[in-house]
Amino acid sequence: MRYRATVAYDGTAYKGFQRQANTAVTVQEVLETALVRIGASSSRILGAGRTDAGVHATGQVVAFDLHWSHATEALNRALNANLPADVVVRDVQESDGDFHPRYSAVSRTYEYTIVVAKEPDPLRRLYTWHHPRPLNISVMQAAADGLLGFHDFASFGSPPTGTETVRVVSKAEWVEVGNELHFTIRANSFLYRMVRSIVGTLVIVGQGRMTVSEFAGILAACNRSLAASTAPPQGLTLVNVQYAGDD
Amino acid sequence: MRYRATVAYDGTAYKGFQRQANTAVTVQEVLETALVRIGASSSRILGAGRTDAGVHATGQVVAFDLHWSHATEALNRALNANLPADVVVRDVQESDGDFHPRYSAVSRTYEYTIVVAKEPDPLRRLYTWHHPRPLNISVMQAAADGLLGFHDFASFGSPPTGTETVRVVSKAEWVEVGNELHFTIRANSFLYRMVRSIVGTLVIVGQGRMTVSEFAGILAACNRSLAASTAPPQGLTLVNVQYAGDD
Repeated sequence: MRYRATVAYDGTAYKGFQRQANTAVTVQEVLETALVRIGASSSRILGAGRTDAGVHATGQVVAFDLHWSHATEALNRALNANLPADVVVRDVQESDGDFHPRYSAVSRTYEYTIVVAKEPDPLRRLYTWHHPRPLNISVMQAAADGLLGFHDFASFGSPPTGTETVRVVSKAEWVEVGNELHFTIRANSFLYRMVRSIVGTLVIVGQGRMTVSEFAGILAACNRSLAASTAPPQGLTLVNVQYAGDD
Repeated sequence: MRYRATVAYDGTAYKGFQRQANTAVTVQEVLETALVRIGASSSRILGAGRTDAGVHATGQVVAFDLHWSHATEALNRALNANLPADVVVRDVQESDGDFHPRYSAVSRTYEYTIVVAKEPDPLRRLYTWHHPRPLNISVMQAAADGLLGFHDFASFGSPPTGTETVRVVSKAEWVEVGNELHFTIRANSFLYRMVRSIVGTLVIVGQGRMTVSEFAGILAACNRSLAASTAPPQGLTLVNVQYAGDD
């Protein structure tokens, strides 16, 4: 039986989601280790998004095949009992045998959080990017509006080998809550580093060091060397992956 | 010159605020080390509250004596440049020579945060207490109302050696925000473990396993063995220390 689950993790201690050839610890690896511990013969985990080192998730989606003779609720508990405290599985459910978290996904949503404060906040340092001076959220939103729709995002990221760089962005919204700026971006899929590259460049707009039309020019240029500024990983969280047929 | 400063810290890695005789790392120790590094001859730091191991602060207040020939702003920067990322100093200012963070304080305010969710949230695990089932915040508030005013809090904590256990609580308020329950409590001062002991017992009320009048009975009994349940440290943050003459 193929199972599907939502996974939340604190990415601080991990070299990203995807298992690597070297000895670095990844989220995929601890999930596969938990599967083996509960008796899986094959421990292959499929994930929806390859989050980078230090990037978090509240809504990563994974799938795996398992012979399990008890309730899915018990499977959920058994997995969490074999996972470290910084990785938590929820909503384990049976899925179609051809469900693939990456290929079946119709959209991914990421959130990026910036704390604007003179001094950094030690209690939020692992989950936000600290910016010591005010940012103009109006011009950041005006620039972000230009991301909506079909675009070639080659300026803002690299595609998996041999694939193209056109993506469809359906949401790109800044919201200010207290001294936090939250950026939510949704697209059919993302290039490597795309969200962090967009946020890093939008912050330059918010600092007044780049105009909205210069930002639009970078997008139009389809040249990876123009968007040189990449926001740090700890501010980024994969919050949702959507599938056809989901609510 | 005596200086006063506000200190924020992530208590996760520390054995509490106060320096200990053994080799455990404390917040006081890293602050004193930073003072020595910027040239202090004496490195004694006075703190307002002795937070326990794992307890956080956004508004701890400290004082220290230093010969400093530059602006206080430069002193603030110099201290932060010599502190680890989980301890941050702000609002460094000159103070009266007799200012003592503990003895001059008129009130302390703590916040305790509980996350009510079926599965724990790995991104909030270091700063909250996870509770898997619903809690009745109305009865928790009704019980907390009974803490207001002058009371002997011997049931909820131990006093420093040779001192008494009467305290004055001026605020004890639960607020629900999303799936978080925030408890704010303010008093002239607190006994050791007092907030965590109160929260641990209020949660038993919220679970329906103790009535509001039974909670009142524990307070009235002045018997430390009755309030046996202590909430874990990571949900607790010292948010403010108030002094006469402050805003």
